[in-house]
Amino acid sequence: MHDTAYNLLHQRHLRYGVRKGEDMTRKEYEGYKYVEGGVCAARGFVANGLNCGINPEKTKNDLGLVYSEKPCATAAVYTQNKVKGAPIFVTQRNLEKSGGISRAVIVNSKNANTCNANGEEVAEAVCELVAEELQIKPEEVIVASTGVIGEPLSVEPFASSMKTLVEGLSVEGHDAVTKAIMTTDTVQKEVAVEFELDGKVCRLGGMAKGSGMIHPNMATTLNFITTDVAISSELLQKALSETVKTTYNCLSVDGDTSTNDMVSVMANGEAGNPPIATDNEAFHTFQKALYIVMKNMTMMLAADGEGASKFLECSCDGAPNQEAAITVAKSVIRSPLVKCAMYGEDANCGRIFCAIGYAEADFDINKVEVELSSSAGKILVFRNGFGVPFSEDEAAEILKEKEIYIHVHLNQGDGHAKAWGCDFTYDYVKINGDYRS
Amino acid sequence: MHDTAYNLLHQRHLRYGVRKGEDMTRKEYEGYKYVEGGVCAARGFVANGLNCGINPEKTKNDLGLVYSEKPCATAAVYTQNKVKGAPIFVTQRNLEKSGGISRAVIVNSKNANTCNANGEEVAEAVCELVAEELQIKPEEVIVASTGVIGEPLSVEPFASSMKTLVEGLSVEGHDAVTKAIMTTDTVQKEVAVEFELDGKVCRLGGMAKGSGMIHPNMATTLNFITTDVAISSELLQKALSETVKTTYNCLSVDGDTSTNDMVSVMANGEAGNPPIATDNEAFHTFQKALYIVMKNMTMMLAADGEGASKFLECSCDGAPNQEAAITVAKSVIRSPLVKCAMYGEDANCGRIFCAIGYAEADFDINKVEVELSSSAGKILVFRNGFGVPFSEDEAAEILKEKEIYIHVHLNQGDGHAKAWGCDFTYDYVKINGDYRS
Repeated sequence: MHDTAYNLLHQRHLRYGVRKGEDMTRKEYEGYKYVEGGVCAARGFVANGLNCGINPEKTKNDLGLVYSEKPCATAAVYTQNKVKGAPIFVTQRNLEKSGGISRAVIVNSKNANTCNANGEEVAEAVCELVAEELQIKPEEVIVASTGVIGEPLSVEPFASSMKTLVEGLSVEGHDAVTKAIMTTDTVQKEVAVEFELDGKVCRLGGMAKGSGMIHPNMATTLNFITTDVAISSELLQKALSETVKTTYNCLSVDGDTSTNDMVSVMANGEAGNPPIATDNEAFHTFQKALYIVMKNMTMMLAADGEGASKFLECSCDGAPNQEAAITVAKSVIRSPLVKCAMYGEDANCGRIFCAIGYAEADFDINKVEVELSSSAGKILVFRNGFGVPFSEDEAAEILKEKEIYIHVHLNQGDGHAKAWGCDFTYDYVKINGDYRS
Repeated sequence: MHDTAYNLLHQRHLRYGVRKGEDMTRKEYEGYKYVEGGVCAARGFVANGLNCGINPEKTKNDLGLVYSEKPCATAAVYTQNKVKGAPIFVTQRNLEKSGGISRAVIVNSKNANTCNANGEEVAEAVCELVAEELQIKPEEVIVASTGVIGEPLSVEPFASSMKTLVEGLSVEGHDAVTKAIMTTDTVQKEVAVEFELDGKVCRLGGMAKGSGMIHPNMATTLNFITTDVAISSELLQKALSETVKTTYNCLSVDGDTSTNDMVSVMANGEAGNPPIATDNEAFHTFQKALYIVMKNMTMMLAADGEGASKFLECSCDGAPNQEAAITVAKSVIRSPLVKCAMYGEDANCGRIFCAIGYAEADFDINKVEVELSSSAGKILVFRNGFGVPFSEDEAAEILKEKEIYIHVHLNQGDGHAKAWGCDFTYDYVKINGDYRS
C-alpha cells in the first residue's frame, strides 16, 4: 500500500529512534553510573530470546524469557484499559497466589492474546510450560504478550520451543530477549545502573518495548525491570507505583492506551544489602535508581515513537501542584497539531498555547510563560497570556534539531513535571494504516 | 515542503469533504424540509463577504457580515479552552450589555486574533465600525475570528472595507459569507430547514467552518445560525445548550479544542409565530429544527476534517446513560489508531475494542457487541468481551466505502449517542506541518 510514496518519504525522513541516555555526570545523579547488561545487569538474572514461529519472519525473535534462580520480591502495575489482555489477568492472579513472588518472565510479540475467548487458558498453559521446564511453580511466572489484538494464539509454538529457550538462558541473553519484545520498535531499549547500598554494590536494569498505542494510564507498554537489591514486595510496589506517575505515565505517542501495558520489577536480593523494609534512606537511594532507569526508558520510548522524526519534551514548572504540572505537560505532548507543527519545523506556537489552554487543570493562564529550545538555542514565545514576537529565523534554527524542548512556566506554585513524546509524521499514518500486514 | 511526495499522495487520495444531508424523508423528520439560503434562509437576514486583505490571496474571502434589521433574541456557547480568542470575550460582554440582543455578526478568517496583547481593543473597534455603518449599537454585534493564533491583527482592513461590505448586503450573500469563514475547509458548509409553528412557516439555517483543531467542549468551531422564529433568549439558550451536547460536542477531528470556538443563534421573530416563552410543543418543534441543522453541519464538518478521505460515525447504544454513550462513541472516534486503520482500510478491530476499553465511563466490557458497516454491508466483530471471527474479504469490501459506521452496543441500559469524525491521513500531517505558510 502507498509504497512508492511511502518509500520516498521514508528516505527523506529517516526515523529518529536512537537517543543517548540522560547525562549521568549531573550532580543529582551522583553515586549512580550506567552499566551494560539490561535485565541481566543485576546478579542472578539470565535471559534468552528466539523465534518460535508466531512471527513468520524467522529472523525476528518473538519469544523471550527472563529467569532468576532465587525467588524475587515482585511489584507490577497494569493497564487501566477495561479491555485487558489475557496475560494481564493471569499475571495478576499468579502474583496474588504466590504472595508477590516471581522467578520468571515469559513474553511473546506479534500476538497480544487479547479479546480471545480462550486467551487465559493459553496464557496459563504457557506459564505451566515455563514452570515445568524451569522446575518452578506456575504462579511464579509473569506472562505477557504484545502485538495484534483479537487473533487466536496457539500454545503449540511455546511448547515446541520451551526446552531450547530454557537451555539457552545466559547473562548475555538480555540482547536476545530485548529483541523478542520489539514490535514496531526500530531500536532495542534497555538501560541499567549501578549504585551502592550500605557498602554493597547493587544493580538495577530493565528493558522496554513500545512505539505506538502509547498513552499510559497507571502503567504503560511492556517494561521488565530486574534488580539484585533486597527489598520487600510492599516497598517495591510503593517505589514502582510512585515512579510510574512521573515517568511512563508522562509519555504519549498517540493518545491510545494499550490493552496490554505492564511494568514489572523483580528483586532477588543477591546484592546482599540489609533488606529494605522501611521508607528509609536506602529506600530513597533504590527509588532513585528505579527512577533513572524508568525515566531513560521512557525517553527512549518517546524517541522511537511510531514514525517519529523528532523527540519532544515538555516541562511544566511553577504549577499549583504536581498533578496540574503533569496534566499541562501531557496536554501539550499529546496535541496532534503541536506534533504536526514540530514535524513541519513550523514555529506555530499558538498551537502550544491552545493545548495549554485546554489542559484540564486549574490555573491562571495570564501568568503563563512559554519558551522553546533545542541545542541550537532558546526563545520566549508567550508571556502573561499573550504571544511574544520572536525571530522566525531563530525559531527555524531551533526546530531543525532532532530534540525539541517546550518549557511551560505557570508561575503559580512549586509543582513541576515533564512529559515526553514525538512528532506526528507521514510514517505514523503509514505504519498504522496497515499494521497487520 | 515535501511537495513531490505530497502531490503524489494527494492525487491518489482525493479529499472526501462533500457529504449529502441526512435523509429528510425519514419518519422522525416529518414536517421538516431542506431549503436553500443558509444563514439568509430565514426572513429578514442578509449577508455579505469579501476579501479585505487579511488574506493576501485576493480571491479568497476573509471578511463576512450577517445582518438582521430587526433585533434578535440571541444565544451563544463558547470554547472552554482557558486560552480564548479576544473576540470571545468581546462577544460575551456585548451580549451581556445588550441583554441577549444582537443584530449583526462580523467574522474574519486567516487571523484568530488570539493571544494578541491588543486583541480585545481590535475586536471592540471592529464592532464599532460595524455599528456605525449599520446604525446599530456596538453591543448588538457578535464578533468572531478564525485562523492563526498569536499574530497581530490590524483594524485597518476592517475599516477600509466596512462600507463596501455593508452596501453589498443581500439575501444572496449567504454564499459570500460562508466562503469568508473558510480556512482549511475544502467545501462550504451551510444548511437550512423549513417547518411550521402554529400555522406559520418558519425557517432556521446556519453556516459553519472548521476542519482541524476540532474537538469541541461545550461549543465548537465557528457556527452561526439564524431563524425567523419568535422565541425568548432564555429558551433559545436552553435549546442551543442542550443540542450542542449531542451534535458539535460529539465531533472530533484531532482531539484539539480550539481557542475560538463559538456557536451563536439569532432569532428575529419575523415568522410571526406566537413567541415561544415556555418549554411547550412549539419549543420542541423548534428545537428539532435546530437539531437537524446542527447535526447536518456536524456531519459536514466531520466529512471535511483536515486531510479526511473517509467519514466515520460511531454510534453507542445500550449505555447506562447518555453521558456514558457519548464518552464511548467519542473515545472510538478520537483514537488515532482507529483513524489510521480506517484510512488504510484495514479491519484491525482490536483498536476499536481498545478505544472502547479506555473510554472513561462505567460499564461492563463483557456485555459489549461491536459491528462494522457501510453501504457495502455489515459484520459483527466483537461479542461478550471477545473478538468474533469475520471474513476479511467482507470487511475489506465494507472498508472500501467513503462512509464507515461503527456500532457499539453496550447492552446495559437505554443511553445512546453518536459521534462523528474522519480518518487520519498523510494529508492531515501535510496540512498541519506547514499551516502558516
